[in-house]
Parts: sequence; structure tokens; C-alpha cells
Amino acid sequence: MVNLIEHVQQYANRAKAASRELVLVNGEQKNAWLRKSAELILSNSKAIQTENQKDLDKADDYGLNAAAIDRLKLTDDRLEGIANALEQIIMLPEPVGEVIESSVRPNGLLVTKVQVPLGVVFFIYESRPNVTVDAAALCIKSGNAVILRGGKEAFHSNQALHSILKQALKETGLPEYAVQLVDTTDREAVGHFLKLNEQIDVTIPRGGKSLIERVASEATMPVIKHFDGICHVYVDQAADLKMAADIIVNSKCHRPGVCNAAETLLVHSAVAEEFLPLAEQALTGQGVTLKACERSSKYLKNSDPATEEDYRTEYLDLILSVKIVDSIEEAVNHINEYSSQHTDTIVTGNLKASEYFLNAVDSSAVIVNASTRFNDGGEFGLGAEIGISTDKFHARGPCGLKELTSYKYVVHGNGQIRS
Amino acid sequence: MVNLIEHVQQYANRAKAASRELVLVNGEQKNAWLRKSAELILSNSKAIQTENQKDLDKADDYGLNAAAIDRLKLTDDRLEGIANALEQIIMLPEPVGEVIESSVRPNGLLVTKVQVPLGVVFFIYESRPNVTVDAAALCIKSGNAVILRGGKEAFHSNQALHSILKQALKETGLPEYAVQLVDTTDREAVGHFLKLNEQIDVTIPRGGKSLIERVASEATMPVIKHFDGICHVYVDQAADLKMAADIIVNSKCHRPGVCNAAETLLVHSAVAEEFLPLAEQALTGQGVTLKACERSSKYLKNSDPATEEDYRTEYLDLILSVKIVDSIEEAVNHINEYSSQHTDTIVTGNLKASEYFLNAVDSSAVIVNASTRFNDGGEFGLGAEIGISTDKFHARGPCGLKELTSYKYVVHGNGQIRS
Repeated sequence: MVNLIEHVQQYANRAKAASRELVLVNGEQKNAWLRKSAELILSNSKAIQTENQKDLDKADDYGLNAAAIDRLKLTDDRLEGIANALEQIIMLPEPVGEVIESSVRPNGLLVTKVQVPLGVVFFIYESRPNVTVDAAALCIKSGNAVILRGGKEAFHSNQALHSILKQALKETGLPEYAVQLVDTTDREAVGHFLKLNEQIDVTIPRGGKSLIERVASEATMPVIKHFDGICHVYVDQAADLKMAADIIVNSKCHRPGVCNAAETLLVHSAVAEEFLPLAEQALTGQGVTLKACERSSKYLKNSDPATEEDYRTEYLDLILSVKIVDSIEEAVNHINEYSSQHTDTIVTGNLKASEYFLNAVDSSAVIVNASTRFNDGGEFGLGAEIGISTDKFHARGPCGLKELTSYKYVVHGNGQIRS
Repeated sequence: MVNLIEHVQQYANRAKAASRELVLVNGEQKNAWLRKSAELILSNSKAIQTENQKDLDKADDYGLNAAAIDRLKLTDDRLEGIANALEQIIMLPEPVGEVIESSVRPNGLLVTKVQVPLGVVFFIYESRPNVTVDAAALCIKSGNAVILRGGKEAFHSNQALHSILKQALKETGLPEYAVQLVDTTDREAVGHFLKLNEQIDVTIPRGGKSLIERVASEATMPVIKHFDGICHVYVDQAADLKMAADIIVNSKCHRPGVCNAAETLLVHSAVAEEFLPLAEQALTGQGVTLKACERSSKYLKNSDPATEEDYRTEYLDLILSVKIVDSIEEAVNHINEYSSQHTDTIVTGNLKASEYFLNAVDSSAVIVNASTRFNDGGEFGLGAEIGISTDKFHARGPCGLKELTSYKYVVHGNGQIRS
């Protein structure tokens, strides 16, 4: 094997070359690859599971807990799910070549702003092997070549799935290196990739905070980052309190371990006495522990005191911070100070309050009268997503096909020159 | 004076606070500020020119040449031009709050993707004092607070213009610190600003390559970069050769010192013998020196040999590289290898050639049968521009109001929870 720097450079060079070919591939060809990949995953189900078993056998050595082992496991049902997800991506409209805007200039030039692929995506992930297929599918559908770098826990499963995607590329005539899986999980290799901004157009890390921080600080190319989700539900004085209780329970408990789960409940002082006992009953019924400010603790049977640090914490667990505020302005100021700008909800029946909240809160999704859990590509109708961005630059919130594209200006003239 | 790090931090904190207020300011208020600024610039014309004279008096000390001194000078006419530019920006549609997309989900949620300001823009520029006003106007119109850091050569002029913009902020009730001008031209201060990614959402450097490289490598926030313009004109075998000669002359000579001027002429071998003498006559008539590949030199009366390095050079001068290619594929490969992905033109009457070129060339503007000089915000109908981006991420090509915005998802529900 050549040295690691050269090895990494080869991946990047092959991806760049493939991306130049992919620009000329039409939607039908890309969909044919998606369909072939789905077929091959189903027809190779047993072989994939054999490779998956090798990872499962090592899971204890890697210290995976029961939940992580379950997420790693590829069953017949789950492989069918992966194949179905590919069929869903086929149904999405072709993103490359879409005209975003166009105008005819006074001199007769036709100027169109056309969606184009970003080029080469470097995707780093730690989680379940289905992400290998999802990410490759979204990148190829959007015309990008992708370099996949999965975690060591799923090494054999990822290899098996990648070899199928590669076979499908070959059978459908797409560039062989449009989808590459890095054959080493050496952390040093990631550092070398992050230097290659001539070949790689964007890096997307999906995993824990330390991974994202490392990538953001080392990368020489743009990074789509997905940091914490410190999401709020604010119960306004004009809220329907029954609705508010349902929304906070759903926002906190539906899937506590995900980024769009709520971490803090803000309650207007005018309704705190009535609402907090109602909310406590509903939340503790789901096993939630409350961390309350001094004022709110008076209306609660059981709570621990909330510290400054609690309001900055993404619990990802059945724990909720609670705070009373005296005005919507105080709620908005608290959110803009403590929120991670991910998802924040107001529950209110007052139009002015709703409009103020939606304008003043600077988060990727601002919601009136619905659960924070809706900030999701599928729920917003984007189709599959490659992640949820907490950036404001380029892509914000759920990242689907469009967020994997750039644009260029295509200009048609008939001899125009500038005078 | 407090120390430099604290001094810089204060600018950033005030800008962040101002940006939170600006989100709630409507278009009418922003236009009132633009109008007031224009009025005050005209009514303070003499005072501005007095300050401008202080810069002109020092121009020799700074080693400015005659052209640079001329660009620095603020006359009555030029101040009128600056005021008129503000009136033009008033006419542009309000960018904040514009709905980019919307959909009603099956569960009744109304999801709208709404344009919002980026937040705080740190704008570094070296050039003419009118840029102070233009940049502030574009940032405020798009709802962003801006920190302006001008060059030392225009220090007094910039101060005078900024004090007028500030007075207009006060008179129209906009946040006092929405537009700040850094009161030191210490290079070290820039380094401190580039660390403040909590307060500053984007940095835009406008100036020489070394400035942009420094900013890109030090910045901890996104940067909109404007690197070289190595632009090509490819004359296809199916070109109207008279049109091709007009286009290369305009692309090269209309303003040789700007980024969208052509630097390389590619000619299909089938038309080289007929076209090159025609082009030479037209170009040398404008004083252009040719650097030619060996094959093309045979059809030229006077040329120097072109080196590999020449094809990678942005001359910004009346010099043009010339190269013969044997196919459109060779032309596209040359462009994708040597172009700075800024602006590339094909001259052809063949539809297939035009379509292939427009798809395969990966540049911010790809043009058929028109001058490269058209890649410009004004010419494309974007209105004023804050720069031309050579990035593919977030903003590509001319950057106007839209490129100074992000978006958020605004979701209206009536009690929806996820099941």
C-alpha cells in the first residue's frame, strides 16, 4: 500500500474525475442506478447479513451498548427498508438543471440561474450502515461524487453495501468512482482528506459534537455542520393549555435522543399556575424529570433546581428545563441567548405574539402551535435528508437534494458585447 | 483606549445586538434610511470633500499611482453618483421575508421557507470610498448589521461618509450600531475580528489575492471569496468568425483590469487559419500582445510563446494567451483545468456544441455568443453587487441582496404532534 497521504489523494482525484462525468449524466440514468442498487440489495440480502454478522461479532469489543448493537443489525426487514428508501429517492424531482430564476435583459441576453451539483462530497458518519446507502443515493441523485467514510463498528457491513452500489454503477454505466468507501478507518486519513479543498467541495460530518468540532476546525473546504439541538417550547399567556401540554409532551418524549426534541419549557407567568401542574402530570407520566427555575418550582410537586448550565444543555434524555418568563420579549431573548438556533415553538392563540415570535427568533425552524419534532426533511416534504444543518450559510435546517447543489448562470446571447 | 482584542469584541457585540433589532425593521424604514443617507451625502458634499482632501494629500506617502489617486478622489459628480446608487437600491424589492417555497403538509402544517438576513457582515475592502456607502446600503437593505473595515488610503473619506450614514440611522430610528466603521486600520485588528464566529456570520474581503488568502485561512466563520478571473473565449469550428472577433476584443479590451476580462483565447483547429489573422488584426489594433501556443503562432504575425504558467495567469492587462484545440472536448478540458471557474464563453452556431459547453464547463457564468464582460450583477439584473464570488458554496457569481441572506422554515400548525 502506498503511503496514507497518497492513498487519500487518489480517492480525491478519482472522485473529482467522476464528478466531471456525472454532470453530463441525466436523471433517467441516475434513477436506473438507484433502481439497480435496490434490486441488488434485496437479491444479496443473505451475503450482506453474513458481512453484517462480522461487525456484530465485534460489537462487544468496541463497547457498543444494546441500543447501538440493535441499530447496527441488518435484518431482512431493514434491508427492505433500505431498498424502499432508494425507491423514494427515485420519485423525487431531478435537481440538476432546474432553472431557479431567469430573465431576459434589455440587450436580449437570456440569463438563467441553473441548479448544478456541488461536485465532490466527503461524508463522514459513525452511525448505522443504512446511512451508507442513503448518503450515496442523495449525492448521486444530486449529481455529486461522494467519498464515504464510515465508522469502524460497521466496517464489514459498509464494505458489503458499497460493493453492491459499485456493481450497480458498473451495470448502469455510471462512473466507477462516483461512490467510494474509504478502506481505512484510520483517524489520520480524515485529516488528510480535510486538506484537499481542490478536489472536495464540501465535507459533511454526521456524528458526535467532538467529530463535528474537529472537522470544522481542520477542514479547508466548506462544512455543513450539525451541532446541538437545544430546542424550546414557549407557552404564551394566550395559549390553549391542553394543546400546549400535548405539544411539550410530544416535543420532549416522542424521541428524546434526537436533535429536534425539546430541552427547555418556557411558560408565561400569567398561565404558570394553571399550566405547570397540568404539564407536570403529563410529563412525569412519561418519566420526565424536571429542572425548574425558582419561581416555577413553586407550582411543581417534584423538581430539581435548574442551573445556568442546564439551559445550555442538550440532555437527549427524559429531562426538561423549566423557566417562567414575564413577557414574550423575555421568552425570545432567552431563546436567542440559549437556543442552538435549531427549532423553537410558541404555543399561542394570539396573532401578534405568533408573528413577533416567528420574526424575532433566529432558528432554522420557528413553529407556532406544533411539536418541535416536525423539523425534519421528510416532515417538511423535502424527501430524504442527509442531515440537519445548524449553520445559516448555504444550507439551514434539513438538508435534502437541493442543499447538495450550487448554481451557475447560463447566458444565451447572439453576439452581445458591452459598450 | 482599551486593548485591541476588547476593542474589536465591542464592535462585534454591538453589531450582533443591532442585527437582532434589524430583523424587526420593515422595508419602508430601511428605505427611509437609504433616502436620508442620499440627502445627507448631497447636502454635506463640501465637508466630505474637505476630508477627502486629507487622504489625497497623503496619497503620495502611500505610494498611490495616478490611477489610484483618481479613484480615491470624491468630486461633486461622484458624490451625486453615490447618492444615485442609494436611490437604485431603494428600488430593489425587499429581500427579507420573501417566501422562497411553501407547502401544506398532509397533516395540515403550513411550511414556508422564508428569506432572512445572515446577521452580521464583516466587510474588508481596500478600494474607493464609494464602496463604504454601497456595502452599507446592501447590508442594511438585506437586514444585516455591517462592520466596515476600509483601507488606510481612504481613512478620512470613509470616516466622513460613515458619520453621515450614522446620522441617517439616528434620524430614521434604525439601530445606531447597524453600520460601524472600524476606527483603526491596524492589520492585527482584522485577525481578532476573524476569530469572532459567535458574533459575525460572514466575512467578505474585497481586494487583492493576498488579502483574500489571509482572510480565508484565518477566518473561523464563512467567507465569500473573490479570487482570480481566468476567463476563456472558445471559438468553435461552427462560429461566426466576425462575431467571434468582436467578442474576444470586447472580452479582452473593454476593461482589461477587471475579473471578467478574458485571459485566454481557445480556437478550434478547423477555423484557426482563417480566424487567427482576423483576431490578431482586431486585437493588436487595441494594443494587445499575444502569447501563443506553437501551432497558433504559425498563423500570427507577432506573438510570444505561451508557457504552461501563462495559461494560469490573470494578466489584468492587454495580454492574451492563445491556444489551438482539436475538439470541443479538448477546449472544455482545458477550461476545467486552467479556468478559475469565473466566466467562460463559447462562440458557436452549433446547438450541440453550445449545450455540451454550457453543461460541462463548471464556472459561475457560462456564456454562448456574448462577451465574458457580462458576468456582473448589474448586467444580470440583480441590482448592485457586493462582489463576485468564485465559490460554489452559498453564493456563486455576482453577490447582491439575495446572497446576503439565509432562510428559515416558518411552520404554522394548530396543535399537530408527531405520532
